[in-house]
Amino acid sequence: MTSLGHVLPQSMHFAEPLPLRSGATLADYTLVYETYGTLNAERSNAVLVCHALNASHHVAGSYAGQARSEGWWDNMIGPGKPLDTRRFFVIGVNNPGSCFGSTGPMHVNPATGRPYGAAFPVVTVEDWVQAQARLLDRLGIDRLAAVMGGSLGGMQALSWTLQFPERMGHALVIASAPNLSAQNIAFNEVARRAIITDPDFHGGDFYAHGVVPKRGLRVARMIGHITYLSDDSMEEKFGRALRSAELAYSTQEIEFQIESYLRYQGDKFSEYFDANTYLLITRALDYFDPALAQGGDLSAALAVARAKFLVVSFTTDWRFSPLRSREIVKALLDNRRDVSYAEIAAPHGHDAFLLEDPRYIGAVRAYFERVAQEIGA
Amino acid sequence: MTSLGHVLPQSMHFAEPLPLRSGATLADYTLVYETYGTLNAERSNAVLVCHALNASHHVAGSYAGQARSEGWWDNMIGPGKPLDTRRFFVIGVNNPGSCFGSTGPMHVNPATGRPYGAAFPVVTVEDWVQAQARLLDRLGIDRLAAVMGGSLGGMQALSWTLQFPERMGHALVIASAPNLSAQNIAFNEVARRAIITDPDFHGGDFYAHGVVPKRGLRVARMIGHITYLSDDSMEEKFGRALRSAELAYSTQEIEFQIESYLRYQGDKFSEYFDANTYLLITRALDYFDPALAQGGDLSAALAVARAKFLVVSFTTDWRFSPLRSREIVKALLDNRRDVSYAEIAAPHGHDAFLLEDPRYIGAVRAYFERVAQEIGA
Repeated sequence: MTSLGHVLPQSMHFAEPLPLRSGATLADYTLVYETYGTLNAERSNAVLVCHALNASHHVAGSYAGQARSEGWWDNMIGPGKPLDTRRFFVIGVNNPGSCFGSTGPMHVNPATGRPYGAAFPVVTVEDWVQAQARLLDRLGIDRLAAVMGGSLGGMQALSWTLQFPERMGHALVIASAPNLSAQNIAFNEVARRAIITDPDFHGGDFYAHGVVPKRGLRVARMIGHITYLSDDSMEEKFGRALRSAELAYSTQEIEFQIESYLRYQGDKFSEYFDANTYLLITRALDYFDPALAQGGDLSAALAVARAKFLVVSFTTDWRFSPLRSREIVKALLDNRRDVSYAEIAAPHGHDAFLLEDPRYIGAVRAYFERVAQEIGA
Repeated sequence: MTSLGHVLPQSMHFAEPLPLRSGATLADYTLVYETYGTLNAERSNAVLVCHALNASHHVAGSYAGQARSEGWWDNMIGPGKPLDTRRFFVIGVNNPGSCFGSTGPMHVNPATGRPYGAAFPVVTVEDWVQAQARLLDRLGIDRLAAVMGGSLGGMQALSWTLQFPERMGHALVIASAPNLSAQNIAFNEVARRAIITDPDFHGGDFYAHGVVPKRGLRVARMIGHITYLSDDSMEEKFGRALRSAELAYSTQEIEFQIESYLRYQGDKFSEYFDANTYLLITRALDYFDPALAQGGDLSAALAVARAKFLVVSFTTDWRFSPLRSREIVKALLDNRRDVSYAEIAAPHGHDAFLLEDPRYIGAVRAYFERVAQEIGA
């Protein structure tokens, strides 16, 4: 089991506008993507990997000359890894609206000649899937062996099965949910308010002012981090450990290690993440709700799916708890779909989907063995 | 069971400085308090009620000419109510550092002639208990029939049993914890960062600038509210209900009812709550940890307690879960203390301690019956 080694991002321009769920359209746009492995002669071994809030097309491998530049799912994808690039052709693509290369709010709006800012159209999970499908058209891939994603990426995998049921064999929906709960939306909304009310946000046009709403981004990221970790893992990792042996008795200085950790995560995030992207992606999360058009009946909504499924959840994930994954499984079983479900007793909360739990990794490996056998890869 | 009717706050000035845990002292200060019922001839029927973050001395009854001015525990305290003011003399006192009348960061620092602001000394649960004890000295109350509090108020009740074990008969510790978890501290820290990084905070001296860091206070309150409600009750009350029939597809406009609710709560809070007080009180929560001096051994820490206890927790409280209350119960049982414990299957999360669950109300009522019998009230 070795790493992919060095990889290179590619980009593709699309001149035809993308019609969006909202009724708006995204004018010509560019998608940045990476591929690993080799597309076979039958063009049957492609696997699309969808990213979550704070991730990108850079799924695996690393960049030449950049230390610690491994992709966000490098432990999952590579030669001999669970998604084995010796057998599969893997595609990672940055979604429009994101801030890692594909057209986003920091890019020039052709209609105005200035950065989109808050005028970037609201994009949905469904829109992203449409954009991904167009990329596959261009790559000459009619049918995917599988679509795979965790968290918001899992929502994209699920949406694929509804929008393009005949274009895929399998969906791997990991640490995800059929929609956000009120509490999930609530956390997103607090994060958005922190960003939007930061005076440096300038109504989304901060680019023109040469500033970044870092205060808001920091708070947003700190909130996010709390929801990614389980209560228990936070307790085990930090507990009430103090930074110094003596208390400072201060409301502003750091006393506890957990404060130091959160501030560091917030600072780091505010250095690279785009504030408008944060708003757009949390909104895409809020809006995702395939059952809505069926009056909330998820089983009815998933009736069009034809893919076979692996659904995975983690016991300590309180952001998207196992109960939410079981809703998906139940709706699939109501439709007599082929579904495998693994509920992994992992301590790390939502973050577990990015980590190395052997049962989890083993379940994904075994599932891709099956996919490989089916397509003879 | 009727209301107390109209009540009046009183205030008492203390000229002698209060030495604080931090090593600092609070110069002369004023405490605002209310009392309900009548102190009996033996002075044995006094019950002190301690408040949490966003509450005050105004525990029960209402203010003449002010609609909806009922005290925060009016459902619990009054003639014929669980804490029956026909039998008990009830005292509510606003803690120093708060923003409801007792000396706090918005008041003039005698050392500078200007508002304390961020220079207000950091106060702890232990300091508040000392201040409360001084008030009782002045009121001529040597021994309390009981000390009662919910959440942070419960920590004060617990601290009373350790600092003044002989001065009280009973402690009612409701929806509380022996200390904050890493996750609890994390939420406090995000709220503090939102306030401190609000440009209108001005390092705590916003009074001089004629502004209030409302953006930070709003975010802080929104975060708080999420942790006060259970996931389930939020889901039941709001779910994914939309404000309008049609989606607006906007990152800034309100789409979901939960967003509207949170923004409203944040706005309301930012109109009346003091930003420095928010920092001080969340810090007092962070610091509370009676087991620390015993190397984390709560049983050793509680060995000095002599009170009898009622401990109450709520099954859906994820801020201070039943597990945390059970730690207190276990430590008391290790010391062969007299402890009653009620774990109430209530759906409302942490907020349940302020609500009307009949099992909860019944447990408190029954407990005070016992206290009344013991003192012949």
